[in-house]
Amino acid sequence: MSGINLAAESGETVSLSGGNLTIVVVVALVAVLALGVAGFLVKEVLRADQGTERMQEIAGAVQEGAAAYLTRQFRTLGVFAVLAFFVLFALPANSTNERIGRSIFFVVGAVFSAITGYVGMWLAVRANVRVAAAARVGKSGELPATRIAFRTGGVAGMFTVGLGLLGAATVVLIYEDEAPKVLEGFGFGAALLAMFMRVGGGIFTKAADVGADLVGKVEQGIPEDDPRNAATIADNVGDNVGDCAGMAADLFESYAVTLVAALILGVAAFGDDGLVFPLIVPMIGVLTAIIGIFAVSPRPNDRNGMAAINRGFFISAVASAILCAIAAFVFLPDEYEGLSASSQLLDDTGAAIVDGDPRMFAVVAVLIGIVLAAAIQQLTGYFTETNRRPVMDIGKTSLTGPATVILAGISVGLESAVYSAALIGLAVYAAYMLGSGVLILALFAVALAGTGLLTTVGVIVAMDTFGPVSDNAQGVAEMSGDVHGEGAQVLTSLDAVGNTTKAITKGIAIATAVLAATALFGSYYNEVVKAVDETGVDPSEVGLRTQQALATFDIINPNILVGLILGASAVFLFSGLAINAVARAAGAIVFEVRRQFREIPGIMEGTGKPEYGKVVDICTRDSLRELATPGILAVMAPIAVGFGLGTAPLAGFLAGAIGAGVLMAVFLANSGGAWDNAKKLVEDGHHGGKGSEAHSATVIGDTVGDPFKDTAGPAINPLIKVMNLVALLIAPAVVKLTVGEDENDMLRGTIAGLATLIIIGAVVNSKRKSIAVSDESTSGKSTAGVAG
Amino acid sequence: MSGINLAAESGETVSLSGGNLTIVVVVALVAVLALGVAGFLVKEVLRADQGTERMQEIAGAVQEGAAAYLTRQFRTLGVFAVLAFFVLFALPANSTNERIGRSIFFVVGAVFSAITGYVGMWLAVRANVRVAAAARVGKSGELPATRIAFRTGGVAGMFTVGLGLLGAATVVLIYEDEAPKVLEGFGFGAALLAMFMRVGGGIFTKAADVGADLVGKVEQGIPEDDPRNAATIADNVGDNVGDCAGMAADLFESYAVTLVAALILGVAAFGDDGLVFPLIVPMIGVLTAIIGIFAVSPRPNDRNGMAAINRGFFISAVASAILCAIAAFVFLPDEYEGLSASSQLLDDTGAAIVDGDPRMFAVVAVLIGIVLAAAIQQLTGYFTETNRRPVMDIGKTSLTGPATVILAGISVGLESAVYSAALIGLAVYAAYMLGSGVLILALFAVALAGTGLLTTVGVIVAMDTFGPVSDNAQGVAEMSGDVHGEGAQVLTSLDAVGNTTKAITKGIAIATAVLAATALFGSYYNEVVKAVDETGVDPSEVGLRTQQALATFDIINPNILVGLILGASAVFLFSGLAINAVARAAGAIVFEVRRQFREIPGIMEGTGKPEYGKVVDICTRDSLRELATPGILAVMAPIAVGFGLGTAPLAGFLAGAIGAGVLMAVFLANSGGAWDNAKKLVEDGHHGGKGSEAHSATVIGDTVGDPFKDTAGPAINPLIKVMNLVALLIAPAVVKLTVGEDENDMLRGTIAGLATLIIIGAVVNSKRKSIAVSDESTSGKSTAGVAG
Repeated sequence: MSGINLAAESGETVSLSGGNLTIVVVVALVAVLALGVAGFLVKEVLRADQGTERMQEIAGAVQEGAAAYLTRQFRTLGVFAVLAFFVLFALPANSTNERIGRSIFFVVGAVFSAITGYVGMWLAVRANVRVAAAARVGKSGELPATRIAFRTGGVAGMFTVGLGLLGAATVVLIYEDEAPKVLEGFGFGAALLAMFMRVGGGIFTKAADVGADLVGKVEQGIPEDDPRNAATIADNVGDNVGDCAGMAADLFESYAVTLVAALILGVAAFGDDGLVFPLIVPMIGVLTAIIGIFAVSPRPNDRNGMAAINRGFFISAVASAILCAIAAFVFLPDEYEGLSASSQLLDDTGAAIVDGDPRMFAVVAVLIGIVLAAAIQQLTGYFTETNRRPVMDIGKTSLTGPATVILAGISVGLESAVYSAALIGLAVYAAYMLGSGVLILALFAVALAGTGLLTTVGVIVAMDTFGPVSDNAQGVAEMSGDVHGEGAQVLTSLDAVGNTTKAITKGIAIATAVLAATALFGSYYNEVVKAVDETGVDPSEVGLRTQQALATFDIINPNILVGLILGASAVFLFSGLAINAVARAAGAIVFEVRRQFREIPGIMEGTGKPEYGKVVDICTRDSLRELATPGILAVMAPIAVGFGLGTAPLAGFLAGAIGAGVLMAVFLANSGGAWDNAKKLVEDGHHGGKGSEAHSATVIGDTVGDPFKDTAGPAINPLIKVMNLVALLIAPAVVKLTVGEDENDMLRGTIAGLATLIIIGAVVNSKRKSIAVSDESTSGKSTAGVAG
Repeated sequence: MSGINLAAESGETVSLSGGNLTIVVVVALVAVLALGVAGFLVKEVLRADQGTERMQEIAGAVQEGAAAYLTRQFRTLGVFAVLAFFVLFALPANSTNERIGRSIFFVVGAVFSAITGYVGMWLAVRANVRVAAAARVGKSGELPATRIAFRTGGVAGMFTVGLGLLGAATVVLIYEDEAPKVLEGFGFGAALLAMFMRVGGGIFTKAADVGADLVGKVEQGIPEDDPRNAATIADNVGDNVGDCAGMAADLFESYAVTLVAALILGVAAFGDDGLVFPLIVPMIGVLTAIIGIFAVSPRPNDRNGMAAINRGFFISAVASAILCAIAAFVFLPDEYEGLSASSQLLDDTGAAIVDGDPRMFAVVAVLIGIVLAAAIQQLTGYFTETNRRPVMDIGKTSLTGPATVILAGISVGLESAVYSAALIGLAVYAAYMLGSGVLILALFAVALAGTGLLTTVGVIVAMDTFGPVSDNAQGVAEMSGDVHGEGAQVLTSLDAVGNTTKAITKGIAIATAVLAATALFGSYYNEVVKAVDETGVDPSEVGLRTQQALATFDIINPNILVGLILGASAVFLFSGLAINAVARAAGAIVFEVRRQFREIPGIMEGTGKPEYGKVVDICTRDSLRELATPGILAVMAPIAVGFGLGTAPLAGFLAGAIGAGVLMAVFLANSGGAWDNAKKLVEDGHHGGKGSEAHSATVIGDTVGDPFKDTAGPAINPLIKVMNLVALLIAPAVVKLTVGEDENDMLRGTIAGLATLIIIGAVVNSKRKSIAVSDESTSGKSTAGVAG
C-alpha cells in the first residue's frame, strides 16, 4: 500500500512539553468555565415567574414523569454499562494502565453523556412553565419567552461542550502518550449511552405522540394537549426525554467522539502538537458559544425568534473562524519540520516528507468544518421551512389526498438527502485534498474539519432544546387553560421556529457522524495493521485468504463488498426496527387510553380525571423494552462481521454503514420535518385549512413522519459511531485470534456465531411481541391493532 | 496488492481450439432453437379463440396504443443510441477491430433488447383477449386460460435467453481473443436500452394507473377498468409497455450482462475453457427452460395457477443443476494444469498456482446461483403473499388508518430488503470462498454463480409476463362486460398469482444485478491496472495523490469513501426522480380525464364515448419526456465522478451504488408488493371488506406502492449495470488523461464539469416542469395538483 504509512511508528512515545502542558490545563479550565456559565444560566431561568398554580401542577406532573423515566432508563442501561466495562477490560491493550484507563473512562463517557441529557432535561421541564407564564402577558411577552427558552438550551449547550472538553483534556493530561486507547473508551461510553437514550427516548416520545393523536384527534375528535386525553402528560414527558435528553446526549456523543478521533489522528500526524491543537479549536468553540448564546438576546425589531437565533449562530461561527486562524498561526510551526515531538510526517533525519505550511493546513481544515455547518443549516432550512418551495409543494399535493402527500414527502426526502450527502462528501473530499496524498494527513484534515463543526455545537444544542421547551410550554398553556389570545399565538410562533431548529440539529449531527466516522476509520486501519505487525507473522506467509480477510482493504475484493452490503443492511434493519417499535408501543397506548375513556366515568365531561401516570408507566416500560433490539443490533453486528468474516470485510461493513447511514438519516429527518411543516401550512389556512380533507391528508403525512424524524432518523448518528468504535475496539482481538500464537478459529467462530444468534434472537423476540399486540388488538375492539 | 494479479497477462492471445469451437457453434444453434420454440408457442397462442367483437375491439385499442408508444420510444432512444455509438467509437481500444466491433455490438445489444421487449409485448396484447375469452366458460376455463397466459410468457422467456445466448456466442465466434471488449459493447447496449424501457414504461404504466384511480375510484366512485374512465385504455396499455416490454428488456439485459461478465472473467481465469463453460451453463438453461415451460401444463387437481408455475420452476432448476454438474465433469479438466490455452492460474512453467479440481469449483459456483434463485423465490413469496404474516399484519393495521398502513409497509419493506441483501451477500461470500484467496478465481466464481441464476431466467420471464397478461385479460373482460360470474372469478385468481410472480422476478433480477456488478467490478479493476501499465509510467514516480486517485483501491482512503457516498446518493436520487416523475405525469392524466368528464356530454350515462387515445398520447409524451432525467443521471454520474475524482473514487462509487441499490430495490419492490396484496386481502372481505375505512386505508397504501414497485424499484437493476458498464468503458480514457503522454487535466476537468452540468440541468429542468404542473393545478379546479 504505497504512500500509506499510518501505523508505522505507532509505538512511539509522546509526552507533553511544558508549553503544551500549560495549554491543556487552560483548555480544562475553559471547560470548567463553560459549566460555570451553565450554572449562571440556570439561575437566570429559575428566577422567572412560574405562572398559575394549575400551570405548576401540570408542569409538576411532566417533571415527575420525565425524572421517573430517566431514572429507570439509567438503571436499565447500568446493566449494559457494567457488562461493557468488563468486556472492554478483557479486550487486548498495550499496557495494564491503558486497559484500566479505557474501562474507567468508558464509564466516565457514559456518565457524562447521561449527565448532559439529564441536566438539559431537568431544566427544560422547569423552563416550560416559565416560558408559558412569560407568554401570558401577550405579544410583549414574546421577547422574555424566547429568552428563557433559548437560555435553557444554553445550559444544555454548555454542558455538552463543557463535559466533552473536560473529559478529553483530562485524558490527555493523565495519559499523554497512552491517551488514544483511553479516549476510545471515553468515546465508546458516550456513544453507547447516547444511542440508547436516542432510541429509548425516541420511541417514548413518538409512541405517546402517535398514540395520543390516534385516540384523541382521530377517534374522539378532541384537540392536541386536551387534558381529557390520558396520554397528554406522556406526550409532554416524551418531548423532554426524547427531544431534550436524547438529543443532548446525542450531541454530547458527537462532540466527544469527533474530539476523540481528532486527538487519536493528531498524535499520529503531528505528534505532541497534534494532541494540543484539536483541543484548542473546541476550546475556542466554547468561548464563541458563550458569546453566541448571550448574543441571542432577542431585540424588539426582530422579525421572529429565528432571527435572533441566526444572529447568535453566525456571530459565533465567524468569531470561531477568526480565532481558530489566529490560534493556528500562534500555536503551530510554519514548516512540518517544526512539529514538536516525533511525527509520522518526518523521516528518520527529521526532514518533512511533505512540503507546505501546517498552519495553513490547519486553518483551511477547520474552516471546511465551519462552512459545512453553515451550509447544512441553510440547506435544511430550505427543505423544511414552511415558506419554501418543497414544503409548499407537499402542501399542494394534499388536495389529491394522503397518497400524493406521502409520495411527495418521500421524493423530497430522498432528494434532500442526496444534496446533504453530496455537501458532506464535498467537505470530506476538500479535507482529503489538503492531505497531499499522505493518508495520515488527509485523515487528520477530515478530523480537524470535524472539530471545526464542533465550534458551532454549543449554539446548535441551545437552538435545538429551544424546540421541545416551547412545544412543552404550549402543552402546559393548553392544558391549564390559563394562557389566552395573543399569548397563545406567541407560543405557536415559538413552536414553529423549534421545528426548523430541530431539523437543522439533525443535519449537523449526521455531518459530525460522517466526519468522525471517516476519521475513526483511519484509526481502525491503524489498529489492524499494528495488530498484524505485533503477531510477528510475515504477511506473505499466511494464506492469501487470511491476508484478504485481515489486511487487504482493496474495495475490489468480493468479501469487502459483502461487508459493505451488510453494513448498509444494518442501517436499513435498524431503521425498520425503530419504526416498528414505535408502531407497536403506540398500539399499547391506544388500548390504555381507550380503556380509560371506557372505564373512568366523566372524563369527556371534565368531571373525571384520567390516570396520566398509567400511560407514562406504559411508555416507560415499552420504550425500555423496545430499545434493546436496535441496541443489540448496533453492538453485535460489527462483532459478528469482524470475528466471522475478518477485519477487511468489517472495514467494508463500516463504509457501507456510513454511506447508507448518512443518506437514510437525512432522508428520514427531512421528509419527516417537511410533512410536519406541510401540516402547519394547511393549519395556517392554506388549501382549506383545519378540518378540511387536505388537513387530514397532511395529518396522515405527519404521523408517518413522526417515527421517521424523531426515532429512526436521529438514532442513525450514534449508531454509526457505536459500530465504528466497536470495530476499533475488537480489531486487535480479531487479528490475534486469526494469526500468530493466539490463533483460535474455534473461539473466533463461536464469538461470531453467538453474536449472530443474539441478533436473530432479538429480532425474532421483537416479532413475538408484535404478535402479542396484534392478538390483543383482534380480541379487543374491532378497530384496534396498530402493530406492524 | 499482494496475491491479486488480475491484470497481469491480459495481453495474451486466446483462440478457440477445434473442440471448443464446435461447442460454441452448438451453443449458437441451441439459441436459434429457443427462437424456434418461441415461434411454435406464438402459433399455439394465436390459435386460441378471440372472444366477442366488443372484446376484440377493446384489445385492438390496447394493441394500437402499445405499438404506438413503443414505436415512439424506439425513435427517441434511437437518438441516444446513435450518440452512444459514436462516443463508444471514440473511446480507447486495443485495436480498430475491437473498436468497430464494440460499437456494432452495442447496437446489436440495444436492438436485441428492444426486440425482446417488443415481441413479448406484441404477443401479450394479443393474448389478453384470448385469456379473457377462455375464461368466459367459467371454472372449466381456468386451465386453458392459465395455459395461454403462461405460454405467452414462454415466448418472452425464449426470446430473452435465445437472443442473449445468440449474441454472446456470435461475439465469441467472431472475435475470439478480442471478445471481452466487444462484449462490453453488447452488454452496454442491452443495459442502456433496458434501463430506458424500464423507466419509460414504468412511468407510463403508473402514471396511467394512479391517474385513472385518482379520478375514477376516488372522485367519481366508478370501479377499476370502467369504460367510462378515459384513462382505462392507457392503464391497460401501461401494463404492457411497463410490465411486459420493460420487464422483458430488463431481464434480457440481466441475462446479457451476466453472461458478458462471466465471459470476460472466464478468459482471464480459465483461458480458452473459460470462454466456453460460461456459454454451456446458460445453454443448459435454455434446454431446461423449454422443459420447464412445457411442464407448466396446468393439471385439473392443482390448487391454483401458482402450483403449476412452481412445478415448472423447480423441475427446470433441478434439471439445470444436474446437467451443469455433468457438463463440468465432461468439459473441464480435473486439475487447473489441464486448462486449455493460457490461463492466469498457471505460472510460467505451466504449473497451477492453486490446488483443487476446477470441475468441483465450477459445479459449486453454478449451484450457488441456482440455490440463490430458489431461496429468493421463497423469501419474496413470504413477504408478499396474501396468506403469510407480513401482509396479514399490514392488513390488520388498516383498522387504525392509512398512516399505520404506510408505516407497517415501510417497516416490512426495510426488513425484507435486509434478508434479501444478506442472502445475496451470502451467495457472493460463498463464491468468494471458492476462490481460495485468488482474486480472479473468486470473481469468476461470482460470475459463474450468476450464470447459474441465468438457467432459471427463461421460466422466470414466462412467470412474470403471466402477470400483466392476466391483469389485462381482467381489464378486457371488465370493459367489454362479456365475462361474468365464475369466469370473472377465474381471472381475479389469475391476477393475484401474477402479483406474486412479478415480485419474485424483481428479486431475481436484483440478485443478477449484484452478481454481475460484482464480477464487472473485477473487470473494471483489470481495465484500470492495464491502462496504467500501458501509459508506461512507473507508479512510484507519479504523485501520491495521483496514485490514490487512479489505482489505490484501499477503502480506507477518504476519496474512496466520498465516491461511495456519491454512489449511494445516485441510487437515492434516481429513486426520488422516478417517483416524482410518476406523480407529475399522473397529475397531467388527472387534468385530462377531468376535462373529458366535464366537456364530453353523456360519459357518465354511457351515451358519450371518452377519447381514450388522448390519454394514451399524454402518457406517451410525458413518459418519454420524464425518462430523460433519470437516464441522464445514470450515464453522466460515473463520467463526472471518474473524470472528476479519478478511477479509484469511481470504484467506491460503484460499490456504494451496488450496496445501496440492492437494498433500495428490494425495499421498494417488496413494500409495494405487500401493500398491493394487503389491499387484495381487505377486498377479499377481511377487516370490513370493500368500501370500508380499512379498504380506503389500503388503497392509499397501494397507491404509494405503485411507483415504488413498478417504476423506481425495478429500474435500479439496469441502473446499477449501466453505471458499471459506463465506468468500465471510460476507465482507460480517464487513466490516459491523468498520467503519461496524453495527460490533459484541462480536458479531464472539462468532461467532468460538463457531465455535472448536464445532470444539474436535467434535475433543474424536471423541477421546472413540476412548477408548470403545479401552476396549472392551482389555476384550475381547487382540487387539482398532484405534482410533488
